Amino acid sequence: MNSSIIHSVIFTLKHDKESTAAKQFLADGQALLSSIPTVNNFQVFQQVSAKNNFQYGFSMEFESQAAYEAYNDHPIHSAFVKERWEIEVVDFLEIDYKTHQQ
Amino acid sequence: MNSSIIHSVIFTLKHDKESTAAKQFLADGQALLSSIPTVNNFQVFQQVSAKNNFQYGFSMEFESQAAYEAYNDHPIHSAFVKERWEIEVVDFLEIDYKTHQQ
Repeated sequence: MNSSIIHSVIFTLKHDKESTAAKQFLADGQALLSSIPTVNNFQVFQQVSAKNNFQYGFSMEFESQAAYEAYNDHPIHSAFVKERWEIEVVDFLEIDYKTHQQ
Repeated sequence: MNSSIIHSVIFTLKHDKESTAAKQFLADGQALLSSIPTVNNFQVFQQVSAKNNFQYGFSMEFESQAAYEAYNDHPIHSAFVKERWEIEVVDFLEIDYKTHQQ
């Protein structure tokens, strides 16, 4: 079965919370990553649980593993990781949810 | 502003994957926790990213912080944590997403 995947990454920026640089990173991430054709329902969140130290979350949905891989391999994603993520993100955790088959 | 919260917990059970005990835990968690009145859109996931070690995820939505606290304080939740979670879960991480205000 070809089940959809909810891909989430929680992360902390090197920028101060609510700083212009932080807002710019979130806005650019949203604009760039959501432009990749296989990305659905891209969302930007604040991570507010006191039980972990991450500040933000990006969440997106893929129709299939192939759609996820197309995103991973897309030049816009690769460039964003190299030019922004690796420089501005100090810690992160990736989470992939697949619907549980009972 | 009263913004909604997506509460997620990723976790690992002491039971083998796909075991009857694991399936029972997921089914009972879904039945019990989703019965709490302030819980919306309760979902059970497999966590499939190889970049973390968690096996499953529960996800739910709350309309407000008050709705979240009503869930946390609800006797069904407290009993589930005490009688099942603390015994059958070996590791977990809680994540709370709030919509980011630009």
